[in-house]
Amino acid sequence: MIAITLPDGSVKHFDAGVTPMDVAKSISEGFARNVISASFNDVTIETSTALTEDGNLVLYTWNDDEGKKAFWHSSAHILAQALEQLYPGIKLTIGPAIENGFYYDVDFGDKTLLEKDLKEIEEQMLKIARGKHEFSMRESSKQDALDHYKKEGNEYKVELIENLEDGTITFCDHDTFTDLCRGGHIPNTGIVKAIKLMNIAGAYWRGDEKNKQLTRIYGISFPKQKDLTEYLELLEEAKKRDHRKLGREFELFTFSQRVGQGLPLWLPKGAALRERLENFLKKAQKKAGYEMVITPHIGQKELYETSGHYEKYGADSFQPITTPSEGEVFLLKPMNCPHHCEIYNSKPWSYKDLPKRFAEFGTVYRYEQSGELHGLTRVRGFTQDDAHIFCTPDQLDEEFKKVIDLVLYVFGSLGFDNFTTQVSIRDPKKPEKYIGNVELWEKAEAAIISAVKDKGLDYVVEEGEAAFYGPKLDFMVKDALGRSWQLGTIQVDYTLPERFELEYKGSDNEMHRPVMIHRAPFGSMERFVAILLEHTGGNFPLWLTPEQVTILSLSEKYEKYAQKVLNLLENDEIRALVDNRNETIGKKIREAEMNKIPYMLIVGEQEEKDGTVSVRKHGEGDLGAMTPEAFAELIHEKIKKESKEFNV
Amino acid sequence: MIAITLPDGSVKHFDAGVTPMDVAKSISEGFARNVISASFNDVTIETSTALTEDGNLVLYTWNDDEGKKAFWHSSAHILAQALEQLYPGIKLTIGPAIENGFYYDVDFGDKTLLEKDLKEIEEQMLKIARGKHEFSMRESSKQDALDHYKKEGNEYKVELIENLEDGTITFCDHDTFTDLCRGGHIPNTGIVKAIKLMNIAGAYWRGDEKNKQLTRIYGISFPKQKDLTEYLELLEEAKKRDHRKLGREFELFTFSQRVGQGLPLWLPKGAALRERLENFLKKAQKKAGYEMVITPHIGQKELYETSGHYEKYGADSFQPITTPSEGEVFLLKPMNCPHHCEIYNSKPWSYKDLPKRFAEFGTVYRYEQSGELHGLTRVRGFTQDDAHIFCTPDQLDEEFKKVIDLVLYVFGSLGFDNFTTQVSIRDPKKPEKYIGNVELWEKAEAAIISAVKDKGLDYVVEEGEAAFYGPKLDFMVKDALGRSWQLGTIQVDYTLPERFELEYKGSDNEMHRPVMIHRAPFGSMERFVAILLEHTGGNFPLWLTPEQVTILSLSEKYEKYAQKVLNLLENDEIRALVDNRNETIGKKIREAEMNKIPYMLIVGEQEEKDGTVSVRKHGEGDLGAMTPEAFAELIHEKIKKESKEFNV
Repeated sequence: MIAITLPDGSVKHFDAGVTPMDVAKSISEGFARNVISASFNDVTIETSTALTEDGNLVLYTWNDDEGKKAFWHSSAHILAQALEQLYPGIKLTIGPAIENGFYYDVDFGDKTLLEKDLKEIEEQMLKIARGKHEFSMRESSKQDALDHYKKEGNEYKVELIENLEDGTITFCDHDTFTDLCRGGHIPNTGIVKAIKLMNIAGAYWRGDEKNKQLTRIYGISFPKQKDLTEYLELLEEAKKRDHRKLGREFELFTFSQRVGQGLPLWLPKGAALRERLENFLKKAQKKAGYEMVITPHIGQKELYETSGHYEKYGADSFQPITTPSEGEVFLLKPMNCPHHCEIYNSKPWSYKDLPKRFAEFGTVYRYEQSGELHGLTRVRGFTQDDAHIFCTPDQLDEEFKKVIDLVLYVFGSLGFDNFTTQVSIRDPKKPEKYIGNVELWEKAEAAIISAVKDKGLDYVVEEGEAAFYGPKLDFMVKDALGRSWQLGTIQVDYTLPERFELEYKGSDNEMHRPVMIHRAPFGSMERFVAILLEHTGGNFPLWLTPEQVTILSLSEKYEKYAQKVLNLLENDEIRALVDNRNETIGKKIREAEMNKIPYMLIVGEQEEKDGTVSVRKHGEGDLGAMTPEAFAELIHEKIKKESKEFNV
Repeated sequence: MIAITLPDGSVKHFDAGVTPMDVAKSISEGFARNVISASFNDVTIETSTALTEDGNLVLYTWNDDEGKKAFWHSSAHILAQALEQLYPGIKLTIGPAIENGFYYDVDFGDKTLLEKDLKEIEEQMLKIARGKHEFSMRESSKQDALDHYKKEGNEYKVELIENLEDGTITFCDHDTFTDLCRGGHIPNTGIVKAIKLMNIAGAYWRGDEKNKQLTRIYGISFPKQKDLTEYLELLEEAKKRDHRKLGREFELFTFSQRVGQGLPLWLPKGAALRERLENFLKKAQKKAGYEMVITPHIGQKELYETSGHYEKYGADSFQPITTPSEGEVFLLKPMNCPHHCEIYNSKPWSYKDLPKRFAEFGTVYRYEQSGELHGLTRVRGFTQDDAHIFCTPDQLDEEFKKVIDLVLYVFGSLGFDNFTTQVSIRDPKKPEKYIGNVELWEKAEAAIISAVKDKGLDYVVEEGEAAFYGPKLDFMVKDALGRSWQLGTIQVDYTLPERFELEYKGSDNEMHRPVMIHRAPFGSMERFVAILLEHTGGNFPLWLTPEQVTILSLSEKYEKYAQKVLNLLENDEIRALVDNRNETIGKKIREAEMNKIPYMLIVGEQEEKDGTVSVRKHGEGDLGAMTPEAFAELIHEKIKKESKEFNV
């Protein structure tokens, strides 16, 4: 008998040799039908693997990330089999599960695979799937495995096996197909009901451009046809909401080849939107006792040597800026913290002065490979809504919680109600990745976990994800399409205060080191605006949106009245514009709807006579006629309702 | 007989051989007593020089810059004579007039001159001056001049003479003293009534640090003792108002050796003050139809090659920034205009869209030698209140005038009522200094002069002072101490539109080039804040000042009431602080006065009982008791009165 512990802590006893699927069935037949993968003592296994000792068993369904991983990994096997059947003589290399689906990298020899071939491959895969072939693992010696692939003439698999440690090598078989594999499959191919091969790309063997280029086929699969349909609709919707597309359509930002890749130019509407976001945060920060500072975008190399940034990032960054004389060397600022440390150091402090909270919308520059750049989410210059809090160790817990409150206020105000958090701590096995001593790291990690628990946040702890100078708390928001984005971050830092020799005089009249908190609720203005665009599809909150109202005149006769209404609204701080073009009212309304302008005011003969406007709401329709004054009040009421004050 | 034309256009006839002083006497004896220098056909001469041909004569008094120059140049001769008398064997080199006074560079051999020696030299100078010795020019051959100084053993003068062209060399004699000299003196030493030697400095012969170090003695002199007294008082006052000193005292900004010289760090109070200034200008700009944009602080080298900045400044600037791969090369942005041109180029424009006015508080970086750096007035990174107007050639005149209106509004709002303007045009003799074709330059220069005339501005035209890309209008304000500062600038540019191939579609359906106006009313935020500090001595306008009110509690008993008053004021958007320290009220008032806080509210038993505050105004004293609400209203009234709206 062996004792199997389940995730809820319950312990069940079985005969040795029991499989995860047996255990699932012992819980309920219905549950077992949904189980597609398992892990035992934190190691991924098959649902058919015999268990021979006591341990912790987790059973996964499609709803678990581990379940999806097994599902997609198994689908890659099906893809490989279909390819071998359709294109005999090809050489398979690797085929992992990825975040959304799977791929397989294949050497097609002289053959060039085309997009139009994908349909046939999909059909072949579905045929295989319908065969309900079981996946089963098989052990082999390294030599047997090498012999197998040498005979087949597949130098890629040979290379993979040669790089494995000696000992047992495993293969996975299903139907007539076999592949070198570590395991982690669904019970049989029949569970895969829907398949879509997304696209074909080139990929170098082992990611090295000196190696041969292979053909990568991306695909995704689901247990129900309905799931695939929904996924494809989501993709379509995401494409519509792509912030690069919306940013262009709404004229928020642009890029210029001459200025350089990854360096956004904010157009008037985008700059104004960004300013409203900044003012929103500034107001909350002022209430929370932050003080704004302004620092330059460069600093001497020595500054970043002191901070450790140069040692850590110097080689991969924008290179140093020399000067025509005097031998001074500068760097583009990759982070604002060293500058804020120098501001702290510009005068002596007493414990009574702390905490000091220096905030700056500080633009920083970090080099990224051009292939990594993406719209506003991955750029080479971006503006952090940065702040550094310098406090005594006793104040750390409370300050950290206050920052969490501020971050939650920001998310709530902008409609990100769905989020999780991640506490990123050191990888204790890789001390060389971090600066600063272990004791300080432990204190900082404990402080974060305590604050997160106290605030009742949904969190996971990730080892090895900390910044090099300290542990951090990251906020991942889910957008309207259910996609996860990393937004705000709060980081504890005992290291920079050491490196910059920051001090304050304690109540004991001795000098002490303060603790630093780095934080950025938005993350960066660029990234935040991008995510907000994709989240809202351009339907920004009323207080934030570039144009709140458009006045549509029924014909040129009402131009003057339209202008009068415009002036009235503008004097009341409402952002409005007039559409006096010689177009039908239907066309004007359609365009205003497309431009996501929240309110349309239609003015014609009746309205001018009555001194009213006919109000139409985006996505909702007619609200009836009212005076411009009443409409202005309605707008202000609505804004007041949607923008809560930050309460400290 | 010769015909002498005077500056008023009148022509007088004299016998050949008449001197400028004779001409002056022919106008009036009283005027002649004030004449101290002259120029004939634009060449500086002595008042005793015989005129032998027709020409234009200008007579200068102490009130003219040319008069002061002759006065101080002559004073340098007196200094040299005094030094020779007191320290025989010294070697004189050069001794010019400068902006405020004069200096003489002297090789004292082994002797070290000390500050305490200056008094004795001053007295010797005054003794010489009282001798009323006439200055008289004498011609000499180059050989005779060389022989004179070789005999004396003065290798410096020998070198100077050797570098002169062959022909007539001139000396100036007075009393027993003679010096190599081009001329331009006052009639006699007796006119110098007051002398102050300011300080001693080291200076390399010919400014080259490989040469011997000489002793430079700085001095200033005046025709009346009263003028010297006033000048020294002014210096004392200027020292008190030095923006570096006030900036430190008010905690507005700081510098860090680690961040780098010339790179200001704005402290909370300074950053907030700067933000208020920016918001003030933003508001006026919004009314005037400007749109804010935001652009990065770097750009590809190619961008500045296109603009011409690289060719012009590349070698003397911060050097290019390379990247770890891809061969891209960037430069720190020295100006915002290339970025704004790229924004203009991001979409097509019609003549109906113009003018477009893109504004940005854009931080730019320009390398300056460390010796040139000075507080916030000469820095390596500064934020321009920049804007670029893109308009049709037909709109240029009106747009230029609108910008003048905005600049005048800014100056008026900040108390700079005393200013002059300078129209800087090309030096037509040095076409290589400028880019762009002559015809465009002529049009631009004419447009500026027309606008300036139309606005009735006090202006001078300076040849050779234009920017390399176009002519400009600069505003020079006089501060409270009568010192001139260059502030705002407006520049016309036909060149960048060519270089960036900017276009719009005209009413004729053809493509045309727009004209650009560059403008910055403040000039830069750094420089403007510095000048405002020196102008006001820290007594900023109420709307701008960091702390408007300080609440002084009579003792700790009234802390709570003080806090209540503070909350009330803060909720009413008034910037206030509380001084609850255990100090006498007298000391608290003295410190508040020193910190230039406009209002002090004293709270004690009586005030708490009555629910009032006792108001004291900076520099004026007691205003009596009133409720905090009434005081808040008083503040808002005062701010409303001092900040006029900008009317377009």
